[in-house]
Amino acid sequence: GDAPDATDFANYFCTYAFLFHQKEMLEDHKRTGAYYTAIMQNQAQFKDKVVLDVGAGSGILAIFAAQAGARKVYAVEATDVAKHARKLVQHNRLGSIISVIQGTIETVELPEKVDLIVSEWMGYFLLRESMLDSVLVARDKFLKPGGALYPSHARLYVAPIRSNLTHSRQNEFRNAMEGWASFTDDMQRYYGVRMDCLNDSFRDEQKQYYQQTAAWADVSPNQLAGRPWCFKQYDLLTVTPQEIIDSFKEHFELQIIEAAPIEAFAGFFDVQFKGSPENPASFEVLLSTAPDPQCSTHWGQQVFHLYPPINAQPGDRISGDINISRKKENHRLMQVVFQHCIIPRQQQPQAATPKLQSTERVDFFSIE
Amino acid sequence: GDAPDATDFANYFCTYAFLFHQKEMLEDHKRTGAYYTAIMQNQAQFKDKVVLDVGAGSGILAIFAAQAGARKVYAVEATDVAKHARKLVQHNRLGSIISVIQGTIETVELPEKVDLIVSEWMGYFLLRESMLDSVLVARDKFLKPGGALYPSHARLYVAPIRSNLTHSRQNEFRNAMEGWASFTDDMQRYYGVRMDCLNDSFRDEQKQYYQQTAAWADVSPNQLAGRPWCFKQYDLLTVTPQEIIDSFKEHFELQIIEAAPIEAFAGFFDVQFKGSPENPASFEVLLSTAPDPQCSTHWGQQVFHLYPPINAQPGDRISGDINISRKKENHRLMQVVFQHCIIPRQQQPQAATPKLQSTERVDFFSIE
Ligand SMILES: Nc1ncnc2c1ncn2[C@@H]1O[C@H](CSCC[C@H](N)C(=O)O)[C@@H](O)[C@H]1O
Ligand SMILES: Nc1ncnc2c1ncn2[C@@H]1O[C@H](CSCC[C@H](N)C(=O)O)[C@@H](O)[C@H]1O
Repeated sequence: GDAPDATDFANYFCTYAFLFHQKEMLEDHKRTGAYYTAIMQNQAQFKDKVVLDVGAGSGILAIFAAQAGARKVYAVEATDVAKHARKLVQHNRLGSIISVIQGTIETVELPEKVDLIVSEWMGYFLLRESMLDSVLVARDKFLKPGGALYPSHARLYVAPIRSNLTHSRQNEFRNAMEGWASFTDDMQRYYGVRMDCLNDSFRDEQKQYYQQTAAWADVSPNQLAGRPWCFKQYDLLTVTPQEIIDSFKEHFELQIIEAAPIEAFAGFFDVQFKGSPENPASFEVLLSTAPDPQCSTHWGQQVFHLYPPINAQPGDRISGDINISRKKENHRLMQVVFQHCIIPRQQQPQAATPKLQSTERVDFFSIE
Repeated sequence: GDAPDATDFANYFCTYAFLFHQKEMLEDHKRTGAYYTAIMQNQAQFKDKVVLDVGAGSGILAIFAAQAGARKVYAVEATDVAKHARKLVQHNRLGSIISVIQGTIETVELPEKVDLIVSEWMGYFLLRESMLDSVLVARDKFLKPGGALYPSHARLYVAPIRSNLTHSRQNEFRNAMEGWASFTDDMQRYYGVRMDCLNDSFRDEQKQYYQQTAAWADVSPNQLAGRPWCFKQYDLLTVTPQEIIDSFKEHFELQIIEAAPIEAFAGFFDVQFKGSPENPASFEVLLSTAPDPQCSTHWGQQVFHLYPPINAQPGDRISGDINISRKKENHRLMQVVFQHCIIPRQQQPQAATPKLQSTERVDFFSIE
């Protein structure tokens, strides 16, 4: 709940000040359209209400809320894009309804409490950027009892996939290590400096880059080797700030359907617009970032490449835990650890506590 | 002379902590070799001396100084790469000569003054990164009277060039603007939101990106349409910190030799290793980043694309001023303004004060 500091502005907020970046989000019409539908198909919920848009950006969600009949909309945006939002609001003749306030939600004051909060706070794998913190600050500071959040719920998934990129990244890693070898040869030959004492450090650094950093990808549904597993659900009305900040560990079970080495886990999320118990949405909307052949979102999926791939057969199960935490150096980035093993098909009926130490493994990743 | 703050660490220092990045500099053998030659061919200057390496990185220059016979070398490095440097020093059995000190030069203390300072502080177009500030801090804090800096001098150049990229960047700019037009159409059609009030702001933003941002390039000598002009020289022993911090304006004259539209200015630098008046180098070395067919450096050149190109003929002269300043938002980045006009060939003999208002123009750039 602390206000962002100068480093945070330099690292995180800076990109959002550009119209270019706001445009990229706006023209993700699966995203923008989901908010539009969630708001416009629930006009009864917005009619004559006071609405807060947390992280308004271009002001688009505030405009939707005003179009849906809100009496008053506060559009709070930290960066200079607030100036463009203000212009857009005037140009669309909504200046009497929407107040654009430039500032961080952690520090602004509003003249009244609000009935509804709209916000698009989701980062890669839902939690990257940690902007949900700010939405919960807004909720606890400004939302009236019985009020609703749009979206109201969020869920996290993991799925086993095939991916050619696992192999090619592994090749790039090998090339980098060969490059290092000839580099150290050169350093010895040209300058008489022996650098082989850094071989392991360089290998670790490259491993982290090529093997232990999750990658953005637009996974195609036919890469799925088994059904996605939902390992976490958030009710945004009741989740506590601490639950969001703390690291957590959840179990998953991935039933393998297709014969193939499992080359990666794919992580993604969805959010639901269901209103609140006191003010339920009359029309529920789902915004999903699952692999989709037609219509992917700018979030894509986060892919966790597995070295080596998991040799699983149809009918096998990958059973394990996923551990998610924030990076110490930068609270907007994440660390994801998978601890898992294969439960072969034939073991499954009898196995309450199968002996699986042999295949148990741990894979570390960061989301940058 | 202030110590770097957290934002500076987040933005600037972070990359240097990686061996990958240190390797990229080290394997620029025109760079590393120039330092090696400057130090090893001047062993008489280094023998039994106390040396300070400002921003030691991997520690390579400290090692060269030790190889050249220095009695003691202090290798000061701000980032965690200092740990690798320490390992490298041990591994090359120079632990008794070289002390690696992790810290910023602005804050460390040394047990004694030094005879020589070695440092590789140069950024794009020499001044980007503003690390020369730190070298001057070191000089004023630690260098004995009569001591020398390696390098000792630096020069800045500008040259008129031809570049296909000018045209292609212009096309990308146009595409971006067409993309914006269809984006705003969609926003109106899908959501009834009129965004044309932001056309100019988006255009400005894209203009800044495509037309007013200098680009890294490895310019080939045959792109030169006239000789480079040296517009600035620094004697690093005598230049004041304030002279480096202040913005400055210098005159340039570019004699056009080749018939072609001048599509860009290229900016680059060189540094010289001449020692000091009291301790001159016995063998002078030059490290140049000028266009070179064989052997370019990782600095390449900074290219300032001109929209529209300048229609100059052989024999014409481009006469103007270059104004260089630091960016307000980030002192490690730069702003470069060219104010210039063509002096046609036939005007030149008589022209002491030619009337050129008509062709005078101003081009703004930032170096990011
Ligand atoms: N703590 C905070 N206070 C105010 N604005 C914030 C914030 N954290 C993030 N933001 C802003 O939230 C925006 C998130 S992007 C979403 C923009 C817009 N609502 C849309 O849906 O298109 C960014 O513009 C970012 O600058
Ligand atoms: N004020 C400062 N104090 C200490 N180190 C600094 C510094 N400013 C920059 N540096 C360090 O200076 C280095 C510049 S790169 C040069 C590295 C090495 N001397 C070589 O020639 O290969 C970086 O590693 C950076 O972290």
